[in-house]
Amino acid sequence: MSLPLVVQKFGGSSLADADRIRRVARRIARERAAGNDLVVIVSAMGDTTDELLGLAAAITDDPDARELDVLLATGEHQSATLVSMALHALGVAAISLTGPQAGITTDGRYGRARIAGIEPRRVRAELEAGKVVIVAGFQGQSASAVGDSEITTLGRGGSDTTAVALAASLQATRCQIFTDVRGIYTADPRLVTRARQLPVISYEEMLELAHQGAQVMQVRAVELGWVNSVVIEVLSSFEDAPGTLIKEDPFVEQRNKVRGLAHDRNVAKVTVVAVPDRPGVARAIFDPLAEAGINVDMIVQNVGHGGETDLSFTVPRVELASAKKTLDPLVRELGARELTTDASVAKVSIVGAGLHNAPGYAARMFGTLADKAVNIEMISTSEVRITCMIAEADLEIALRALHDAFELERPEPIDAAVSAAG
Amino acid sequence: MSLPLVVQKFGGSSLADADRIRRVARRIARERAAGNDLVVIVSAMGDTTDELLGLAAAITDDPDARELDVLLATGEHQSATLVSMALHALGVAAISLTGPQAGITTDGRYGRARIAGIEPRRVRAELEAGKVVIVAGFQGQSASAVGDSEITTLGRGGSDTTAVALAASLQATRCQIFTDVRGIYTADPRLVTRARQLPVISYEEMLELAHQGAQVMQVRAVELGWVNSVVIEVLSSFEDAPGTLIKEDPFVEQRNKVRGLAHDRNVAKVTVVAVPDRPGVARAIFDPLAEAGINVDMIVQNVGHGGETDLSFTVPRVELASAKKTLDPLVRELGARELTTDASVAKVSIVGAGLHNAPGYAARMFGTLADKAVNIEMISTSEVRITCMIAEADLEIALRALHDAFELERPEPIDAAVSAAG
Repeated sequence: MSLPLVVQKFGGSSLADADRIRRVARRIARERAAGNDLVVIVSAMGDTTDELLGLAAAITDDPDARELDVLLATGEHQSATLVSMALHALGVAAISLTGPQAGITTDGRYGRARIAGIEPRRVRAELEAGKVVIVAGFQGQSASAVGDSEITTLGRGGSDTTAVALAASLQATRCQIFTDVRGIYTADPRLVTRARQLPVISYEEMLELAHQGAQVMQVRAVELGWVNSVVIEVLSSFEDAPGTLIKEDPFVEQRNKVRGLAHDRNVAKVTVVAVPDRPGVARAIFDPLAEAGINVDMIVQNVGHGGETDLSFTVPRVELASAKKTLDPLVRELGARELTTDASVAKVSIVGAGLHNAPGYAARMFGTLADKAVNIEMISTSEVRITCMIAEADLEIALRALHDAFELERPEPIDAAVSAAG
Repeated sequence: MSLPLVVQKFGGSSLADADRIRRVARRIARERAAGNDLVVIVSAMGDTTDELLGLAAAITDDPDARELDVLLATGEHQSATLVSMALHALGVAAISLTGPQAGITTDGRYGRARIAGIEPRRVRAELEAGKVVIVAGFQGQSASAVGDSEITTLGRGGSDTTAVALAASLQATRCQIFTDVRGIYTADPRLVTRARQLPVISYEEMLELAHQGAQVMQVRAVELGWVNSVVIEVLSSFEDAPGTLIKEDPFVEQRNKVRGLAHDRNVAKVTVVAVPDRPGVARAIFDPLAEAGINVDMIVQNVGHGGETDLSFTVPRVELASAKKTLDPLVRELGARELTTDASVAKVSIVGAGLHNAPGYAARMFGTLADKAVNIEMISTSEVRITCMIAEADLEIALRALHDAFELERPEPIDAAVSAAG
């Protein structure tokens, strides 16, 4: 008879030094003592990934993608062995496995591979041998050019995806993501002191929050959880407190529709000024950006007058230089007057299932910002979200005002019921 | 038609930072441009291995051997990818392989595995694809408890062994060990300014030098070269200068028999004082030491008088504490008076093929030390070596006096001939 299986994931800040690693080991040991089988996914220690990227950058400004993946994957190998050693020191049988050893196969896109399948034969064998299995997150294997297996990495935050995928494959009873915050909040508590932790949030809402800049969970991990109905708990590795459950939410339509605020400072505005207003212009601008791998988000085209129009859009701030490099030669070709950019902007979003059926929320958002004299430069919406681009200087004022306007500090009856049940 | 194959190995000090890695890459690129296929074995960067050991020690004072091997192996993975990236940046096609990917299989002794076999199928495939193959040294794979493959490390200096084993397996035309010295010297040039670089040395002589403390080459790598007749060249990675060839030497009997001096400070003397002189005492002392994994080297038993004797032997200085811990409880059991230890000793050796047939050399060694008032505490000999244990404070005086006495600064005619031919 096998024990209930719990999957736990610990991020880099939870593993930043030997003391923290020993603390994580004690937490794992407690869970083990409670009578559960355990698979633990770990990220690289602290800033290891950035340090390795720095090392590669010191060698070449264009590191080979395959080699970079082998290099980065060593960070998770290291933390996995250290957590396993710390468990041994506590008398807990444990073994570390690399992503390939854990049976995680991916496509061959180095640096941003997607999980293609999981065959956790060895994970099961080690669990049956009575061991806690520590899996190096963020990585898997694909086939090489000569037919052998090659290590690939899943991109930033990929360990979340490893955890959710393994939880789905092993049919775990719980999937816990340990992080440096206590869970999902109605807004970033560093900016909004009245922000409240949510006991539960739906996959769809979490996905929008993550898309719009909430950095607690990786977008793909949430998607994978949704598709496989894995209940994910986000909680703090530094304190014993209930976290936030991400799961299918049957009460979603009965609630206050705004569940939380997201914000994103990694954004810049690009405007092609006075471009001739004729068919094909948008394509001439956006095709080269797509080819350069630049993510364009909000797009606004002003009503044309005199045969000219202004076309504005946002790109991640870190990709602004590359966007300018791509577009500068096109401005003259297109007959536009100039290219202007503004990196001092930010996005603020309200997120909640069913927002699209309740136009009153948009009006309340815009009115709240107007009352605080915050100028809205662009607007975009989805099924469960309304996003405004504003000046970055106004961001904190906007977040606090919206948090008050939508009464997010007040627990909802549904939240209270779920919290008591959890 | 395949190109001549050269195997090169670069040690940690040659790869200590990004600048040195780029320099190593330029050297590899030059060799490649000269029309050779290349397999390059790398150690971990600089002090990486010690740093990783420190990290493990901060977690637990008894790290699991399997986990420690996975941890340590990441050091070589990292340097292999960085060298490969640096070659890419120079426009040289290259690929890094882990020890397991290079087909190196070992027995299952973690931390001190021995190479059991090499199936360099992938190395050959990548060479045929026109790539320089960078192999992470110091590691291989063995079978795990559940039948999967596990990474193992070969112990300190294991990258030398990786290089020689791959050179043998691939029938390389050359095997070059790049290090931070120019080659093998008649004595340590940091201590003996008149020390002379040897153009050639036999496997047997090199083996004795390595055994007796010369840290340029790992003992097992020399053995493996000898068994497989791999001609090994030891040379500097920091300058373009001919190194020292280690090979079968047909002229060995015709030469000045003393080829070089070795010394070793990693030694301590242990004396069991006034132990009853009866059969079985030696076993009662040395069996527990062997079980504790402590290497006993020189052994001297004084002539017994009054039914008692003093038994002295040497252990590596780093193992002295552990030797004391093992022996302290035995002293009373054996009826000995006490245990004394001395960590301020050193070994000095003269090495040369055929020394055992020429007793005059021993006399000259002892006389030279006596002339300098250096007291000899123990003596041991082999076919090609005479070793004296002396006070560590006398070491440099002893080395210089012996270097002069055996005229080691003078090139031999045979050396000169080899040098001109090389």
